[in-house]
Amino acid sequence: MADIIKGIYPPLTTPFIDDEVSFDKLIENLIRYETKLLSGYVLFGSNGESVFLTREEKLQLVRTTREQTNRTIIVGTGFDSIKETISLTNDAAEAGANYALVISPSFFKSEMKHHTFLNYYNRIADSVMIPIIIYNVPKFTNVNIEVDTIIELSSHPNIIALKDSTENPTRISEIFSNVNASFKLIVGTASILYSGLSCGAVGGILALANIAPDQCIQIYTLMREKNFDKALEMQNKMIPVNRAVTSKFGVAGLKAAMDLMGYFGGNPRQPLEPLSEAQQIELKMILKKASLID
Amino acid sequence: MADIIKGIYPPLTTPFIDDEVSFDKLIENLIRYETKLLSGYVLFGSNGESVFLTREEKLQLVRTTREQTNRTIIVGTGFDSIKETISLTNDAAEAGANYALVISPSFFKSEMKHHTFLNYYNRIADSVMIPIIIYNVPKFTNVNIEVDTIIELSSHPNIIALKDSTENPTRISEIFSNVNASFKLIVGTASILYSGLSCGAVGGILALANIAPDQCIQIYTLMREKNFDKALEMQNKMIPVNRAVTSKFGVAGLKAAMDLMGYFGGNPRQPLEPLSEAQQIELKMILKKASLID
Amino acid sequence: MADIIKGIYPPLTTPFIDDEVSFDKLIENLIRYETKLLSGYVLFGSNGESVFLTREEKLQLVRTTREQTNRTIIVGTGFDSIKETISLTNDAAEAGANYALVISPSFFKSEMKHHTFLNYYNRIADSVMIPIIIYNVPKFTNVNIEVDTIIELSSHPNIIALKDSTENPTRISEIFSNVNASFKLIVGTASILYSGLSCGAVGGILALANIAPDQCIQIYTLMREKNFDKALEMQNKMIPVNRAVTSKFGVAGLKAAMDLMGYFGGNPRQPLEPLSEAQQIELKMILKKASLID
Amino acid sequence: MADIIKGIYPPLTTPFIDDEVSFDKLIENLIRYETKLLSGYVLFGSNGESVFLTREEKLQLVRTTREQTNRTIIVGTGFDSIKETISLTNDAAEAGANYALVISPSFFKSEMKHHTFLNYYNRIADSVMIPIIIYNVPKFTNVNIEVDTIIELSSHPNIIALKDSTENPTRISEIFSNVNASFKLIVGTASILYSGLSCGAVGGILALANIAPDQCIQIYTLMREKNFDKALEMQNKMIPVNRAVTSKFGVAGLKAAMDLMGYFGGNPRQPLEPLSEAQQIELKMILKKASLID
Repeated sequence: MADIIKGIYPPLTTPFIDDEVSFDKLIENLIRYETKLLSGYVLFGSNGESVFLTREEKLQLVRTTREQTNRTIIVGTGFDSIKETISLTNDAAEAGANYALVISPSFFKSEMKHHTFLNYYNRIADSVMIPIIIYNVPKFTNVNIEVDTIIELSSHPNIIALKDSTENPTRISEIFSNVNASFKLIVGTASILYSGLSCGAVGGILALANIAPDQCIQIYTLMREKNFDKALEMQNKMIPVNRAVTSKFGVAGLKAAMDLMGYFGGNPRQPLEPLSEAQQIELKMILKKASLID
Repeated sequence: MADIIKGIYPPLTTPFIDDEVSFDKLIENLIRYETKLLSGYVLFGSNGESVFLTREEKLQLVRTTREQTNRTIIVGTGFDSIKETISLTNDAAEAGANYALVISPSFFKSEMKHHTFLNYYNRIADSVMIPIIIYNVPKFTNVNIEVDTIIELSSHPNIIALKDSTENPTRISEIFSNVNASFKLIVGTASILYSGLSCGAVGGILALANIAPDQCIQIYTLMREKNFDKALEMQNKMIPVNRAVTSKFGVAGLKAAMDLMGYFGGNPRQPLEPLSEAQQIELKMILKKASLID
Repeated sequence: MADIIKGIYPPLTTPFIDDEVSFDKLIENLIRYETKLLSGYVLFGSNGESVFLTREEKLQLVRTTREQTNRTIIVGTGFDSIKETISLTNDAAEAGANYALVISPSFFKSEMKHHTFLNYYNRIADSVMIPIIIYNVPKFTNVNIEVDTIIELSSHPNIIALKDSTENPTRISEIFSNVNASFKLIVGTASILYSGLSCGAVGGILALANIAPDQCIQIYTLMREKNFDKALEMQNKMIPVNRAVTSKFGVAGLKAAMDLMGYFGGNPRQPLEPLSEAQQIELKMILKKASLID
Repeated sequence: MADIIKGIYPPLTTPFIDDEVSFDKLIENLIRYETKLLSGYVLFGSNGESVFLTREEKLQLVRTTREQTNRTIIVGTGFDSIKETISLTNDAAEAGANYALVISPSFFKSEMKHHTFLNYYNRIADSVMIPIIIYNVPKFTNVNIEVDTIIELSSHPNIIALKDSTENPTRISEIFSNVNASFKLIVGTASILYSGLSCGAVGGILALANIAPDQCIQIYTLMREKNFDKALEMQNKMIPVNRAVTSKFGVAGLKAAMDLMGYFGGNPRQPLEPLSEAQQIELKMILKKASLID
């Protein structure tokens, strides 16, 4: 098993050339990321365009990444179907993954309550070969896993962390003060990296870390050194960039920013569309203002 | 190819015994449905718990159903992934399906706009062997396909209908007055069967038709005979029942009602849970009040 | 007391010149509306920009209107405060109003449940001199009064109607089939005039009736004559216009359309802003396409 | 003018006896609050049940409070109507208020955009005798004032602060890093007191301060002393209590908690209802667990 979860993990984007996965471009990006103090990588999370990938593409992404790194590999394996989630998780584990990031089921929104979530996560945790991380992301799922549900799930020995992608750090501190130290909290967006870490989180899975890994690591390190003022300063500098590559321009914006930063970004997969020229110009100005490019 | 889309289609629930698909129970239900004047069947739609089924289970559902009927088979094949949607649609077509019901992509909600939908549906329509029906169901997807988008998509020769599961019949009449007669409109919930038919719809894919097919067919027939008052009377009688098996109690309620009506309903698949005893009693009273049971 | 509620009522816009109420312009509009077969007028409803008017301005609007007409006057008097609602209702009654249209309380959204609504409407109905009409308009209030609550409130002798501004006619038919004939249902938007009337509604309070009273009255008359096809045809022609003066361009759009139709529209009150030039051009084209202007 | 805004302010609940304002009970509460290190008081904010009070009741609340204290008095004077907001603000100023807390207009939700807010707040700020504080509270208004709008408004010399009642401290830090030091940020709920203060806020207007003023002040003081760990510990202890008196049980819960803590809480005004007995027992247990009562 890999090290304990902590630090900064980019949810890697999936490179496409002519709408097909380019494993070569992934390798190119990984070679560069390996020079950064990242704790590991998330494959086919939301920003990896998981919903557009086939099962075989996902497993090949794990194999390719494992050949390039000894770091922790976290894979996004959650489906509404318990059966499919277990099956993909175990196959990804055999391919080299260390943890599974399991997004909440959400199709039958009005049925997604306390007991349904307990039922779902406990059954999966019982049947998979690697530990799982609960993934709460209401902006995509339109359901929210309540604090009490997380606290109850944290007692399962194979459920070891929560990635929380709300922007509400109170959830972090409330869970933190009610779970065992072995259960870890990870923020899911750079906008609350500073606040989340100050409330008990141990790291972040951050779209922003695809384009500005050093800055994310710096905030993390400053916070561990209790240098709050400097951390906040860096955080504030990154907020407009983070917004540009998440809520404002989405995956297409994140990939365009990667291209501007010298990584391979490329286009998102169909039916998503690349940024318009006007959007690209706006993005460029945001990166400039944050001193990420000249 | 099957007949033109019109009339009443139940979105068949998927029978489970010990959490595994029971094809025998499906056959039992089908034998009874074949005695009703239904136009055909929808397999693995929302109420078929599509999100909990594996690809192989889905294809086996098509094969089993095709062996029992010459009627139209419509299959729910939409995923966010264009590739997966095309692949499942074509395999289901080979297994005997006549039409594919393609739910809107929805994961990246804020990107799901006019051009994304055009892109998505046109590409799929270009590549599948059977005609497709657009499926708009905001209560599950949290995205809505605008009227103008539907009108534009209706010109594709392989996009032949819309199943609209909002409760807003104005959408029906506005689309109806702007598309060719070859593009058909189908209501997606019995609560607006009367209103939708009076606004230009030609039929319904109705959860309610799993338990009360005769009543649904009767409303449809009365409307075609322009007997609006009688149709409304029957419709009003069915509204509380329809609500019970949809928004109020969900799939678990629909299946419990099937059991009460002599069909095999059974439990929904995990992580969904069956009705509590109190809910079952409430459901029974609703069916009694509507004279569906004694 | 005025006649029984039925037919078409425009919720009159409030004319402003230099951001002050112009009673002269109101009179000019009324003189023209009096030549149409309208059943009466709604003063300071949502489209009357009620929230921007002072109490004294409201009462003066009633007095001015009463001097011009013998028709029914309905006034929008609902506040979250029971006390204020009763007080304004009774003063408006003395000034000549026949009915009060009472919007649901909504500030404390999560407390607005069955018992709160019963409590609110019954207390008000007990204390006012004129009958009240419940006003359900989730697009403004973000709360919805459930069907069961309306049915229970309908038994109060001083609560005589519901204006429902959802676009869901099922609510109309479900309430209609569960209340006494003395309780009336009124649709709150022209987009469901046809469907609402076919489900049991007796009339409409329609923004569209400010600019196209004849067309609204025609749909109403055709429906009473059971000429459903012609009614639907006219309805479909009006849908794009109705959308333009409601959801698309709001009160500013309604007022601009009034100006184009020869009524006095003028600007909405601050902080609302008039349409941009581009919006005015788009609006003009929509009215042209519907043959309302040349 | 009063001191600069900073520290802890309870948004005082309004005491009712037999549904009428009890100024005596207000005085009793104030006498006790005066012994605490609070910076001042908010009158008729959301928790003061502003929407249920008449204009005259509001002004009398200011007069009564001013007689009891030399501390800062902030009054909730925002209406959708610019005219009414200016009028109440100036009358409250004459009665002794120091600042006006102006909730965002919200009725015409879809029109509430950047320019509308600029228009609204700048006009009011130009015409009132006391400085204003912008009040952003989407959970009640269903509109959100964007960060860029706040930054632009902060340059008006008579707009001196923002009370932000989202639970997103990123808004705080982003605004903080883009405005002059004279513009102050105040959190609107105790759940983000710790996080908000660590992101640049200078105080809080906190429902919780009605029942646990000492604990709120302690968190504030610990944060100013950079004793982050102790502050977080106290904050975590208060989160369940804060939730009980806000989202969980609303104003009725806050008032019931005041009664348990020895203040006068009493019932909320009609149509709101007091807690049920079961809810009261649950509330008591939450206060006990937080060591607020024995």
